[in-house]
Amino acid sequence: MDVISVIRTKRDRGELTDEQIDWVIDAYTRGEVADEQMSALAMAILLNGMNRREIARWTAAMIASGERMDFSSLSRPTADKHSTGGVGDKITLPLAPLVAACGAAVPQLSGRGLGHTGGTLDKLESIPGWRALLSNEEMLSVLDGTGAVICAAGDGLAPADKKLYALRDVTGTVEAIPLIASSIMSKKIAEGTGSLVLDVKVGSGAFMKTIEDARELASTMVGLGTDHGVKTVALLTDMSTPLGLTAGNALEVRESVEVLAGGGPADVVELTVALAREMLDAAGIRDADPAKALADGSAMDVWRRMIAAQGGDPDAQLPVAREQHVVKAPSSGVLTRLDAYDIGVAAWRLGAGRARKEDPVQAGAGIEMHAKPGDTVTEGQPLLTLHTDTPDRFEYALQSLEGSFDIGSGADFTATPVVLERIA
Amino acid sequence: MDVISVIRTKRDRGELTDEQIDWVIDAYTRGEVADEQMSALAMAILLNGMNRREIARWTAAMIASGERMDFSSLSRPTADKHSTGGVGDKITLPLAPLVAACGAAVPQLSGRGLGHTGGTLDKLESIPGWRALLSNEEMLSVLDGTGAVICAAGDGLAPADKKLYALRDVTGTVEAIPLIASSIMSKKIAEGTGSLVLDVKVGSGAFMKTIEDARELASTMVGLGTDHGVKTVALLTDMSTPLGLTAGNALEVRESVEVLAGGGPADVVELTVALAREMLDAAGIRDADPAKALADGSAMDVWRRMIAAQGGDPDAQLPVAREQHVVKAPSSGVLTRLDAYDIGVAAWRLGAGRARKEDPVQAGAGIEMHAKPGDTVTEGQPLLTLHTDTPDRFEYALQSLEGSFDIGSGADFTATPVVLERIA
Repeated sequence: MDVISVIRTKRDRGELTDEQIDWVIDAYTRGEVADEQMSALAMAILLNGMNRREIARWTAAMIASGERMDFSSLSRPTADKHSTGGVGDKITLPLAPLVAACGAAVPQLSGRGLGHTGGTLDKLESIPGWRALLSNEEMLSVLDGTGAVICAAGDGLAPADKKLYALRDVTGTVEAIPLIASSIMSKKIAEGTGSLVLDVKVGSGAFMKTIEDARELASTMVGLGTDHGVKTVALLTDMSTPLGLTAGNALEVRESVEVLAGGGPADVVELTVALAREMLDAAGIRDADPAKALADGSAMDVWRRMIAAQGGDPDAQLPVAREQHVVKAPSSGVLTRLDAYDIGVAAWRLGAGRARKEDPVQAGAGIEMHAKPGDTVTEGQPLLTLHTDTPDRFEYALQSLEGSFDIGSGADFTATPVVLERIA
Repeated sequence: MDVISVIRTKRDRGELTDEQIDWVIDAYTRGEVADEQMSALAMAILLNGMNRREIARWTAAMIASGERMDFSSLSRPTADKHSTGGVGDKITLPLAPLVAACGAAVPQLSGRGLGHTGGTLDKLESIPGWRALLSNEEMLSVLDGTGAVICAAGDGLAPADKKLYALRDVTGTVEAIPLIASSIMSKKIAEGTGSLVLDVKVGSGAFMKTIEDARELASTMVGLGTDHGVKTVALLTDMSTPLGLTAGNALEVRESVEVLAGGGPADVVELTVALAREMLDAAGIRDADPAKALADGSAMDVWRRMIAAQGGDPDAQLPVAREQHVVKAPSSGVLTRLDAYDIGVAAWRLGAGRARKEDPVQAGAGIEMHAKPGDTVTEGQPLLTLHTDTPDRFEYALQSLEGSFDIGSGADFTATPVVLERIA
């Protein structure tokens, strides 16, 4: 077996054999296949595709590259969720404790932000003391003790994916549905959850810009999960406008705590409850009411115990950025559009995100939105508040906000639903 | 400028701007763009192509990555030739001294073999004492003193191409016409020749398997040369069967000397004279007769002086392989096919070629052919003689020769001309 013949097969629009896939993933993990060879193969896959059999085998080979976790010792059924990433997407924060409060065990391995999308771990790290890195034993202990855990994936889980993900990120090969699907599902299957709900984002702020692409990605992942015995459901959800009223690490933690306290923006509450219902259903828990668990404080109790179990102080003051800049409404009318991608890029430029994996993020940086599409605004009222510790970034962030919103009569405005489709 | 946006442009079937091309070639040469990023871009170029403007700019950027040579101090017009590589293609060896004997200066920067095609420098290195590596000053001195020089390209010439060529070789991105054309032409233009004749091979033993691909490559290169003020002509020539009766380093030197002595196989003589006429015409020399310069020994005189000027002994005994194996004709009839690729792979397996750049080659290894397509053969007569120093390779080489030739009645046989087309 040699790597050039594998690359040529896909380059010339052929199908990779099971043997070729097993060999190339293993050889890449061991360092026998070089980064420059894998990136050429990734580009050929991006441009020429893989069929269902190839994707399934590719995923299985990535799972086989590392260890598999085992939650069978837990007394509760496990339920996990994955979002393909968006702007203002803090849903994991209220969702994990909410589903735990309803009786499931929620092992939530999360990632960091890259580019214009935020990362769950970056958000939680704005809570003083909170630790993302747990050993497998610590993770099981937090999960067993509180019902939920949100932490970084260990190095032993799908190491082939870890290496390939980092490579794709710097070689323009992120946006390939077979590679996205196998990356997400190899980690989730290796993690050992019994059920999985996928939140596949669609729109300007998502990696999938069209409903067709999102549908293909969702059905590919549902198929992979089902084939591996994981009950898997996907919701396609709107990411044309940011979720909630904040984008940025500490800002989003604050909003999540509002949701757990029974308040918070309507779209965040709606999506949190919808995903909780799917997770509970997939885990076989039919008698719980997530809306009630938000209202009666039981989800908040799990949150506080979960944060504390990972070293965080749930009562601590969250970081606030040193400088603010207000963008005012230039006219009166109805806000008809607020672009998720533009807001995401602006928050990233303010310091909420990172350009390279090794960069730090600012806990307080980001954007507060004072209106969402459909809201009536008055000329001169605050529309957005920009937060940063480094005010020389305001101008760069404001460039991204040019043309990011429309104010009109509202005559043609129709609200986009939060949940667009369900694929099971 | 960032490399991911450049990769994405080509990945998404866009046109690269002049600025993107200049930047990416320069940044890759400096090491700022990594190998894994360039290989992803190369694969995107292979699959999505480049237009004429992009190829021209890409070539100019590779030329600009290094030094340019200057032959303006020479009293004679310069004429150069490049072959895209084939099996038994020893033409440079008799051609360079022949064209010099007719009045041109021939600065022939040549390469080594890789895969099933041989390399001019490997062939000449079978002459005891001969040196491929010359300084720019030595090169000019040999050229000025003898009229011809065949040597390795210096490190200063198109370093971007040197780096990219090595990368393409290990990433399955060799067979891209824009990258082949820009690689060849950047070196030839940087070398500073006034005129250039391209021998574009077509057929099983060539990189271009079809006349359409060869035509596209040839016209791309002729356009690039002409745009840079180099008078450029291309001949498309047959590589469905090996050139001459030998494939292998010392074996081919011996055949080349036969041609310089006024003998040699008809196809080698025909192609050598045809290319010489084109080179002399492109250099503006109209009154010379290459056929006469072969017959009267003047080409041989230049050969002897050129070899001696680079440390070689033109009278030395050439290396002979330690072991031989004869393949006999299995039946009587007309040899209707002798496949160039199969012969090339067999010669390579016998030790004439290398699998990796750093491997050594055997000077004596290779294949002698005792008949060519169109010749009548008798059952049991020697058809091929295999030469190697390592007889355990015979079996591996013989595998490649299974199905490599056909013997029939000859009723349907029509000879393929050596020169198929001319593009100027």
